[in-house]
Amino acid sequence: MERQEVVPDSGGTAPGARPDPWSLPDVSSLTVAVLGGTGEQGRGLATRWAAAGLRVIIGSRVAERAETAAAEVGQAVGASEVVTGMGNAAAAAAADVVLVAVPWASHEETLAALAEPLDGKILIDCVNPLGFDKQGAYALGVPEGSAAQQAAALLPNSRVVAAFHHVSAKLLADLTLPEVHADVLVLGDDRAATDTVQALAGLIPGMRGVYAGRLRNAHQVEALTANLISVNRRYRAHASVAVTGLPPA
Amino acid sequence: MERQEVVPDSGGTAPGARPDPWSLPDVSSLTVAVLGGTGEQGRGLATRWAAAGLRVIIGSRVAERAETAAAEVGQAVGASEVVTGMGNAAAAAAADVVLVAVPWASHEETLAALAEPLDGKILIDCVNPLGFDKQGAYALGVPEGSAAQQAAALLPNSRVVAAFHHVSAKLLADLTLPEVHADVLVLGDDRAATDTVQALAGLIPGMRGVYAGRLRNAHQVEALTANLISVNRRYRAHASVAVTGLPPA
Repeated sequence: MERQEVVPDSGGTAPGARPDPWSLPDVSSLTVAVLGGTGEQGRGLATRWAAAGLRVIIGSRVAERAETAAAEVGQAVGASEVVTGMGNAAAAAAADVVLVAVPWASHEETLAALAEPLDGKILIDCVNPLGFDKQGAYALGVPEGSAAQQAAALLPNSRVVAAFHHVSAKLLADLTLPEVHADVLVLGDDRAATDTVQALAGLIPGMRGVYAGRLRNAHQVEALTANLISVNRRYRAHASVAVTGLPPA
Repeated sequence: MERQEVVPDSGGTAPGARPDPWSLPDVSSLTVAVLGGTGEQGRGLATRWAAAGLRVIIGSRVAERAETAAAEVGQAVGASEVVTGMGNAAAAAAADVVLVAVPWASHEETLAALAEPLDGKILIDCVNPLGFDKQGAYALGVPEGSAAQQAAALLPNSRVVAAFHHVSAKLLADLTLPEVHADVLVLGDDRAATDTVQALAGLIPGMRGVYAGRLRNAHQVEALTANLISVNRRYRAHASVAVTGLPPA
């Protein structure tokens, strides 16, 4: 939990300058790959990004399954030409930004095999290491501290950003909902990378990407998903989180 | 993180009945003690509860400091008769519900001395075990899993509820703000106790108490305060959290 690398907060700006936290890059021309894009969470995000006009590549261990999912997502958003399906490695190689949305049990194995295609790229990790028993969900211990820190350890040449842990897959997939109200907590040690991921969150109507700290503080954000599962059960809801008290963009 | 005691979710209701999660008890006649009520967070909550008409006892290691703080809070809310100050043990003994708001470094010692006056009572724990370095805040490891679980281990005859971790002390103390917008995440294994604490949160204008799981999932809620500190730094804000997607009360 106490990695100490020193990464300046202000990126490339002049000393003393303080960039506007709401000034985010234009990401509309990026191609995003979703590894594990046949799963519920990955598919939901792929759907919303495709609906927003991004080129989206769905990745899967089995290329044929990715192609099937891509065809379905393309049809759902009425834009088949922007969604393609490939094996995970090909998807990672072909994209500008890569989201890993595989089950926690496959997280380490999936990423360890992709160091080369992910070299230099932004890797968004939305994976929640959770266990389940009859009392509900609970956070699993992770030797590296969190799934995101495990990714960073496996991919020292990638720019790992933790985000999209709390967004309801059900709400994402339901395109009859024009907006999905949630703030996406975005964590990472590379300002340009977290800015890019905040902007990707902002492409989805109703969502806002909010910077929420360094990777060393990713564990609790991942684990908070267990609490939201308790909330969903108690209130019969698809809950997510928002950050109150921020100045307007 | 994996305590397994079986506590029925539905409290005393009939099997199959599912109580309305927004149906909360009337807490307006309770007396609340705030241990560590001379600190910023405890004092802020004491102020808002007193403003809402609750009888509030400020506790401190030194009774005289508690009396001074009580006089100041009573004057601030224009209701000196509802706020008194005492030593922590006397405060715990005299109250119906007790909030512990001491620094993490004093948490174990404070509670270990109060098992007797806290016997059978609801103990609200809002303490965040955090460390700080030049990169900001980070979660400390706690052998019991969390501050709240440490409290439960020290006080097996009390009803421990974790809540009020994320509310800005600055906003609480500023009575020129008519409302403090935040959802208070309330965790515990005793439904009547969590319902009571949710109701106490709801006494503060703008706030809502939301059940967010069992004590075994308290760690990430406490640790999330480190992320909010990062948010506050980036956005120059007093951020808190809200839960989106809940059905209306």
